[in-house]
Amino acid sequence: MWDRLLTDCHVATMVASPGNPLGLFPNAAIGISDGRIVRVGKRTELAGFRAKEVTPCGGAWVTPGLVDCHTHLVFGGTRANEHAMRRAGATYEEIARAGGGIASTVRATREAGADELRDQSRRRLHALMRGGVTTVEIKSGYGLDTAAEIRLLNAAKAIGRDEPVRIVPTLLAAHAFPPKAKEGPAREAYVKMIVEEMIPSVARAGLATSVDAFCENIAFTPAEVERVFTSARANGLPVRLHAEQLSNQHGAAMAASYKALSADHLEHLDPLGARAMAATGTVAVLLPGAFYALQETKKPPVQLLRDAGVPIAIATDCNPGTSPVLNPQLIMNMACTLFGLTPEEAIAGMTVNAARALGLAHDIGTVEAGKAADLCLWGVGELTELGYWIGLPGPDRRIFAGLDS
Amino acid sequence: MWDRLLTDCHVATMVASPGNPLGLFPNAAIGISDGRIVRVGKRTELAGFRAKEVTPCGGAWVTPGLVDCHTHLVFGGTRANEHAMRRAGATYEEIARAGGGIASTVRATREAGADELRDQSRRRLHALMRGGVTTVEIKSGYGLDTAAEIRLLNAAKAIGRDEPVRIVPTLLAAHAFPPKAKEGPAREAYVKMIVEEMIPSVARAGLATSVDAFCENIAFTPAEVERVFTSARANGLPVRLHAEQLSNQHGAAMAASYKALSADHLEHLDPLGARAMAATGTVAVLLPGAFYALQETKKPPVQLLRDAGVPIAIATDCNPGTSPVLNPQLIMNMACTLFGLTPEEAIAGMTVNAARALGLAHDIGTVEAGKAADLCLWGVGELTELGYWIGLPGPDRRIFAGLDS
Ligand SMILES: [Zn+2]
Ligand SMILES: [Zn+2]
Repeated sequence: MWDRLLTDCHVATMVASPGNPLGLFPNAAIGISDGRIVRVGKRTELAGFRAKEVTPCGGAWVTPGLVDCHTHLVFGGTRANEHAMRRAGATYEEIARAGGGIASTVRATREAGADELRDQSRRRLHALMRGGVTTVEIKSGYGLDTAAEIRLLNAAKAIGRDEPVRIVPTLLAAHAFPPKAKEGPAREAYVKMIVEEMIPSVARAGLATSVDAFCENIAFTPAEVERVFTSARANGLPVRLHAEQLSNQHGAAMAASYKALSADHLEHLDPLGARAMAATGTVAVLLPGAFYALQETKKPPVQLLRDAGVPIAIATDCNPGTSPVLNPQLIMNMACTLFGLTPEEAIAGMTVNAARALGLAHDIGTVEAGKAADLCLWGVGELTELGYWIGLPGPDRRIFAGLDS
Repeated sequence: MWDRLLTDCHVATMVASPGNPLGLFPNAAIGISDGRIVRVGKRTELAGFRAKEVTPCGGAWVTPGLVDCHTHLVFGGTRANEHAMRRAGATYEEIARAGGGIASTVRATREAGADELRDQSRRRLHALMRGGVTTVEIKSGYGLDTAAEIRLLNAAKAIGRDEPVRIVPTLLAAHAFPPKAKEGPAREAYVKMIVEEMIPSVARAGLATSVDAFCENIAFTPAEVERVFTSARANGLPVRLHAEQLSNQHGAAMAASYKALSADHLEHLDPLGARAMAATGTVAVLLPGAFYALQETKKPPVQLLRDAGVPIAIATDCNPGTSPVLNPQLIMNMACTLFGLTPEEAIAGMTVNAARALGLAHDIGTVEAGKAADLCLWGVGELTELGYWIGLPGPDRRIFAGLDS
């Protein structure tokens, strides 16, 4: 006796096979028990099984719950003023050098009270959930000292408490340098604090499941990132990297040499970097929201990634400065419209490959027996419409751990 | 005794004054009776008035309900396949010449049963309403004969029935030529049918409040549009025009000479056209969703419109081929990000100026005594965030004719 049987649906299992990139299983049914998928089969075949609750789905398209594998969702303030500055012609680098950018969010986040931080972050979380997200990665990186980074990781965990969503917290202390620590001994001291203090305490307390860094000429050098990654490895945490967004720092290849789960952005990735990622199974996380908001012109090398065999994920990058995106389906459309992904690649990018980017491929991202019963039921004519509409409000039904939400 | 008093709010009346483009009225209250705004005043000043229902708004920002002044919302099928073709490099013109484009939606719309057409169109209407839209213009133009165009105008009206939304139907028979009527006597016969049959019958039955046309080298020539406009004028219907989207046909100036309510798209508008529009108060309706979806590079001349004093509206252009947009706030963001509008201009573009574009400035588009009590309450820190977020799900509270919906 199962807990639930979803019947009369067409399932994109996301277990690809030749000619069937979505792993489509038409006229299917899904058995669920204890929050997990027990069986996916033909509707007729599963009709004989008993379940406490049978849900006819009216021929809906079912995908795995969406996985947003790259966000900076917990922050104070907004950066609506910089949005206006960029309209007037300022670049992201100029804004950052002028004390805007991440530094201004660090100030606003430090100044925000606990309730304010929780309430405004939860509003964003709810927007993504309404859009179909069932798992969301949240990075720290607006604290920039040990206590403040831990506060953000705790806040990330707290906003998901009692909510039908899975939060995956990431330590991104190496996001920017604190004010007055951009160079010299203070800069060195900050890297040392990350390596010797933050990563060990966060690992010990189990507050993050990976360590991220921002490798860029306005952020951390490859050599500094290597020290961060070495500490992460010593403390048993996998790594990921913001790489090749504004320039080619050869960060992706370096990240791959640490078996990074993902390298993200990648507009300036070169063939060596792509091949290194392919060799280690490092996922390319493309972030079209930032590309759009910054009105960049250099696109990530999608064909290179395909040719090299690098799995491609996509994410909202929800953050106040460069990607204040609140609708996950819009990111699937932007991935197609701006980067030339196929709709099938876009769907894989927010499900199976996003799960891989989080190291959670065993648990989420496909509709298979044994996986969490996180599902979206879409009221569309065909699933490729997920790449076509621009701002679809969300799925008709969102199921988390087997329950409607 | 009023029906309702909204109190503790900050109101963007959208009655601009120097230095106050949103007409901001902080710490305000709004009195409502019979679905209309009776009074907007200081919170303290209105505290003495009695109302059947008092709604404290918790310091929310209030705008007029959003007005989506240009959509093609009622259609059958989707054009998800063309979305894929464009990714492979085909232009809008190439798709149109290959029998795709509008022609394929005409087929799908004719084939769709009444229930199917109503249900899928209503889903889109609901998406826009959830986003804060209280008035939506809907064009025909996928029928292309008298009965089929009237069927679409009736369907547009029907989907709004018993819904808290105002539908404004527009006859756009001059959207495209029917199959096999692209040239010669058949083309002439179709123009004649519009002029002598469709416009008079639609006007007589009160099925549309204006007449629109698509003036472009792949659509109607300026001379043909003039015949359509002459008939509209003779039948007492104001006109509007799809002008200067793909090339400069000098359509905007011609439309202005017919005192058009609006000229829409305008990427290729020249100074003469802008001055002509300014002289007649013709509103420029900019459609960044189509610009985005088609990945156009020529932007409408926003500074020219400002300098000439042309009111600027923006709209979703919700349609299956070139702008399958379902989120009105996203259009405010795109207007800023892609076209360089200020957030204040974007908000005016979806309220007061959109109302003007529909000839409804007396009734909607501002928060003033006498206007319809169509309002949105936004849970944002400041109203400029409406231009900043990318895909905000919608207002926290949407009020139509004085009632929550
Ligand atoms: Zn990031
Ligand atoms: Zn149009």
